Amino acid sequence: MIISSFNETICAPATSSGTGAVSIVRVSGPDALAIADKVITLKKGTVIDAPGYSVHYGCIYDGSEELDQVLVTVFRSPLSYTGEDSAEISCHASSYIVQRIMFLLIEAGARAAEPGEFTKRAFVNGKMDLAQSEAVADLIASGSKAAHRIAVNQLRGGYSEELQKMRSKLLEITSLMELELDFSEEDVQFADRSELKRLTDDACNLISSLARTFRLGNAIKNGVPVAIAGAVNSGKSTLLNALLGEDRAIVSDIAGTTRDTVEETMTIGSTLFRFIDTAGIRDASETIEKLGIERTFKKISQADIVLAVLDLSLPIDRIKADADTIKASVDLTSQKLIFVGNKADIMGVNKNVNDICKIVSHLENQQVTPQFIEINALTGKGVPGLKKMLEKTQSDRVDASSYVLVSNARHYSELTAALQDLTAVRKALDTTLSTELIAQDLRSALSHLGAITGEFTTDEVLANIFQHFCIGK
Amino acid sequence: MIISSFNETICAPATSSGTGAVSIVRVSGPDALAIADKVITLKKGTVIDAPGYSVHYGCIYDGSEELDQVLVTVFRSPLSYTGEDSAEISCHASSYIVQRIMFLLIEAGARAAEPGEFTKRAFVNGKMDLAQSEAVADLIASGSKAAHRIAVNQLRGGYSEELQKMRSKLLEITSLMELELDFSEEDVQFADRSELKRLTDDACNLISSLARTFRLGNAIKNGVPVAIAGAVNSGKSTLLNALLGEDRAIVSDIAGTTRDTVEETMTIGSTLFRFIDTAGIRDASETIEKLGIERTFKKISQADIVLAVLDLSLPIDRIKADADTIKASVDLTSQKLIFVGNKADIMGVNKNVNDICKIVSHLENQQVTPQFIEINALTGKGVPGLKKMLEKTQSDRVDASSYVLVSNARHYSELTAALQDLTAVRKALDTTLSTELIAQDLRSALSHLGAITGEFTTDEVLANIFQHFCIGK
Repeated sequence: MIISSFNETICAPATSSGTGAVSIVRVSGPDALAIADKVITLKKGTVIDAPGYSVHYGCIYDGSEELDQVLVTVFRSPLSYTGEDSAEISCHASSYIVQRIMFLLIEAGARAAEPGEFTKRAFVNGKMDLAQSEAVADLIASGSKAAHRIAVNQLRGGYSEELQKMRSKLLEITSLMELELDFSEEDVQFADRSELKRLTDDACNLISSLARTFRLGNAIKNGVPVAIAGAVNSGKSTLLNALLGEDRAIVSDIAGTTRDTVEETMTIGSTLFRFIDTAGIRDASETIEKLGIERTFKKISQADIVLAVLDLSLPIDRIKADADTIKASVDLTSQKLIFVGNKADIMGVNKNVNDICKIVSHLENQQVTPQFIEINALTGKGVPGLKKMLEKTQSDRVDASSYVLVSNARHYSELTAALQDLTAVRKALDTTLSTELIAQDLRSALSHLGAITGEFTTDEVLANIFQHFCIGK
Repeated sequence: MIISSFNETICAPATSSGTGAVSIVRVSGPDALAIADKVITLKKGTVIDAPGYSVHYGCIYDGSEELDQVLVTVFRSPLSYTGEDSAEISCHASSYIVQRIMFLLIEAGARAAEPGEFTKRAFVNGKMDLAQSEAVADLIASGSKAAHRIAVNQLRGGYSEELQKMRSKLLEITSLMELELDFSEEDVQFADRSELKRLTDDACNLISSLARTFRLGNAIKNGVPVAIAGAVNSGKSTLLNALLGEDRAIVSDIAGTTRDTVEETMTIGSTLFRFIDTAGIRDASETIEKLGIERTFKKISQADIVLAVLDLSLPIDRIKADADTIKASVDLTSQKLIFVGNKADIMGVNKNVNDICKIVSHLENQQVTPQFIEINALTGKGVPGLKKMLEKTQSDRVDASSYVLVSNARHYSELTAALQDLTAVRKALDTTLSTELIAQDLRSALSHLGAITGEFTTDEVLANIFQHFCIGK
């Protein structure tokens, strides 16, 4: 039996307010069922006597007038989303009706819920940990299969459990070390130092491998950043339009049209991509254009995938020079580079595709081979192939991971802080640093790890997390 | 037990696709529960064995991966909205999840429902009559208390029952008259002619009183039309802005700024008002402005309430002339007229408010006294009072009715047609018209009345009604 920490009963619409057939209003808290009874006249019996997981037909009166005929679903603590007694009222999807039901519930003693308050109660009442609560918001926002998969994994426990296990081991050792401090004058060692070294190493490995997944996890959640780079007039904006299938970027024949970076998201296969059109790279004389090119190099360095657009209608030497410029600004160990040969159709018979391929492959005196594809952005030729290539490139990156990915910036920063503390602990263990200082670093690491699942949180942190939820969740 | 006329099982999202906490997907039809079992893995038992009105916790797998944890509510024929076996799946409100659940349901044998198809099935399966089905759409769309009240009344049966009773009496007599036709050579009368006369009179009275409520019912549903009329530069557009609390109409000091009519809706109290700003009335020389003034008079004649804006800063004679012009175009027996004295503050001490009141009251050598209120549209002075006056004027109109109002244009046209037929019948009964012709008119009236509740409808009529519903209803 959950003893809820909340005295107040809250209510909120749980469905979106747009056009639909049905709307749902949620009530949760110690008086949820009694309040539902005040507002709803059931056809048979009362809400407060109804068993959990049962549905009842009833009528809501607004004064003496019938407001709506509704279905009410009864949930009994602890078997509900919040862990409290709850009722879900399913009514006709009219904004007027929903608004009046809210009014009547509030009049009967409930309070309008704040954003995320139902999930916050689920967390506080021990129905889920903090990382799982955050996954609920991610799950609702997920628009692609990959983002959905990360959220579901996190909701099912994700790395919470693994972190938890490690944390309790560290906690045990920390307690022993703190016990030593109480007996510090007697110079005893309760905590096994070699065991602690091993444990700290394991923890550092786990944490740093989790932290490394953040770039990928965050990219999947918010869209994998793909920079479209290339020399001026190579057709980057035309390529963006061809990919999106609409005229998003301003296109012209005048070199240097795109000064600002243009971003558009699009789901290809199971992944959300965030395409970043950039200013063409050249020795710019104009100040504004120079700034644009600087920004281009910055965007290239931030992208996960770089599409290097080469104008195949240019002389071979120019193409090679352009390819070199872009390659030089890409880190092939962490970024994927795809060479996109544009204007393939107007290349003319004189040019040999093999030459281009050679140029591109010559670039690779590295382990990682950049990919090459011929397209015509204007006619759309080769664009479906490029989309497939993007999909494949991303799924290769993801398959290398286990989908236990850190996608939450808050978790990432806590992991990074914990890693810093544990690295300090590890160093201290090899030196003569006092038990007191080691214990202090361990405590700090533990509190950072605990903040992820919610063992250590302040009201401020909680408020900050749940304010980004929608009302009714 | 309802024998459903439908072989196919349909599915659709029942909630709006915007941001919310919960989304609902509905399944209905002979295989609804079996299909739900294919898609959802319950924690305990199966959907097909579950009793009606029970809720179950389960998981939906998409291939081998968990898609979402859901609640499914089971309804068993005939105790469901459609009268068929149905299931409602409550999932996390992610567009991706809803889309995948729809996909999985369709893969398991359901078909995506057409707009209004659930309600259409409820009608065909005898759960509600056609007028009630139409009320469901009105109920969902209702944005004001008054519109909501009409929809609820119609959903509860409204005038269906009364029409139904009258229709069966008429039907009885019609059958007797048709029996006479079979014995026509023997010159017998089975149907009592005086009884028929009385019945026809009753029917004509009931139908015409219902038809008369259409103007009011339709106005409540779509907004009570309020024309803002007055001489050029009297401040009509400024008044509209003051009423709406925003700069909707273009305002300038140049007389004749408003050429087109501007419409805005706004809920005051329990009623939706549709404000129609009109071009200022004057002897216009310019062709375009002349057209605007013509339209003004048309809009005045279509309004339920006319706000006649008088510029109190003008000489008394001018005010009187302007008041006369507007009054002449208002039908005080069916329309409400409110004189709005604008620019009250800049009237100066020389002018006597009593003079204005006299002018206005002098206008009434009729039973109906037009109302008068002083405002300053620019400063907002008196505007709240005007809003109260509008609310009161409308509620007086409504209280005179019983809220059994015809708000549906289709019903109105069927009522009008039936009335025409019955008037012909009544006339024929006083003359020597043949039984055959009378019976024919009676049949026609009956089919028009039957079309309202759905006894007589074609597939075309049904398709036309339900195509305006939203998906999932």
